[in-house]
Amino acid sequence: LKPVFGKNPAICTAIMETNLNDIIQECKNHVAKKPDVLEWRADFFDDIADGDRLMEVLVGLRRAAGELPIIFTIRTALEGGNDSLELSHDEKIAVYHTVCKSKLIDFVDFELSNPAADIAHIREMCQSSGAKLILSYHNFKMTPEEAFIKEKFLLAENYGADVAKVAVMPKTMEDVLDFMKYTLSIQKQLGIPMIAISMGELGVISRLFGWMCGSQLTFAIGEKSSAPGQIPIKEMQTVLDLLQVNPKG
Amino acid sequence: LKPVFGKNPAICTAIMETNLNDIIQECKNHVAKKPDVLEWRADFFDDIADGDRLMEVLVGLRRAAGELPIIFTIRTALEGGNDSLELSHDEKIAVYHTVCKSKLIDFVDFELSNPAADIAHIREMCQSSGAKLILSYHNFKMTPEEAFIKEKFLLAENYGADVAKVAVMPKTMEDVLDFMKYTLSIQKQLGIPMIAISMGELGVISRLFGWMCGSQLTFAIGEKSSAPGQIPIKEMQTVLDLLQVNPKG
Repeated sequence: LKPVFGKNPAICTAIMETNLNDIIQECKNHVAKKPDVLEWRADFFDDIADGDRLMEVLVGLRRAAGELPIIFTIRTALEGGNDSLELSHDEKIAVYHTVCKSKLIDFVDFELSNPAADIAHIREMCQSSGAKLILSYHNFKMTPEEAFIKEKFLLAENYGADVAKVAVMPKTMEDVLDFMKYTLSIQKQLGIPMIAISMGELGVISRLFGWMCGSQLTFAIGEKSSAPGQIPIKEMQTVLDLLQVNPKG
Repeated sequence: LKPVFGKNPAICTAIMETNLNDIIQECKNHVAKKPDVLEWRADFFDDIADGDRLMEVLVGLRRAAGELPIIFTIRTALEGGNDSLELSHDEKIAVYHTVCKSKLIDFVDFELSNPAADIAHIREMCQSSGAKLILSYHNFKMTPEEAFIKEKFLLAENYGADVAKVAVMPKTMEDVLDFMKYTLSIQKQLGIPMIAISMGELGVISRLFGWMCGSQLTFAIGEKSSAPGQIPIKEMQTVLDLLQVNPKG
């Protein structure tokens, strides 16, 4: 499958500040570290429900990011995101509407656990705006079995996603190795690019080697970690350069 | 199990020069790069069958290595070693005799494919000298199935080895992940420390993460690669420091 993020694997760092100035400053700090993709974790933005403030951030981010692809993500508390996020269903849909209409964002991440009607709605908005849709499944407690994980990836494709993302938590190294084997096998049946992450301390191996099992994007720490098990972008770049440029003995 | 090489994982670099001066110079070059263990690949030494010349190298290596543990290894052409090595059976036994009697070597590596009587003989020599015995199995063509690999590890233990080593060649990423899962499971039944390596470009993951699956030693390039898939010691140290000191997001 064609690399959907330009580079394969692409390294993404997440911006998680609470106000316009800090978000833009953080974005500039990240850009200096040369990630391949930026994710704006908008669930941490204090004024997320205010359309004008939201537009200010979107414009500021695009200026600071230049050509770098930006992923727009809202992760609720239940989805492993900002615990203090308060956003009604209608406000949430309105946020996506503003984001897509702005045409300033390249990718929109949306949780597979959302109602099918909402997923279809977001999908339409993305299509109108030219943004690509990442449908994602997270499990911060355990690593489900292969059939379950496969179902999530295929569900994302069936919903019309451009990218399918699954992030799970291992309890043992066996879980990590099993998950990587699952993704190796599932990617052969999946018609869209995948992101596959085994989180936490044990899962670091999947962040560094997931690209060898089909995962096109890996998340690293720009300034702050957005999920357990991430390593700093500088080290991630060092290891990936080493593995991709100089893998031979 | 207690780390048999001091550190866990320990990084080992192999010395493969052909004459006394080059071997000692190479050893000094390696020591400057701070490996945890040195391996002398004596199959590349031109005068391997000459007891006096052999002793000169052993003394020189010990002086240059100081406290660093040294593994003594002869790998024949069939075992993936020096193609031009010519050493009769009796000469080979005499070499191990000289090496063990010198008490200058910490570990002796010997192939499991050798006759049982020879293995027992080498084992006795090691016991007299205080050297630890590594019994090893290599497969440069493929990754055998779990039962076969388990048998090799357990065979090494049954022969009285202090360390069991298995290195295999993957054809696919599945082979690499399977092999790492095997070692995870086998180490729980094995009463001695293990070294487990999936070689080649695909197997790099096992060189960096094998310690999370029970492997206590990983081989890196000091000056020259001694097996396919090795990465330079500096990069190996960088990655291991990163994974062990800073694995949390």
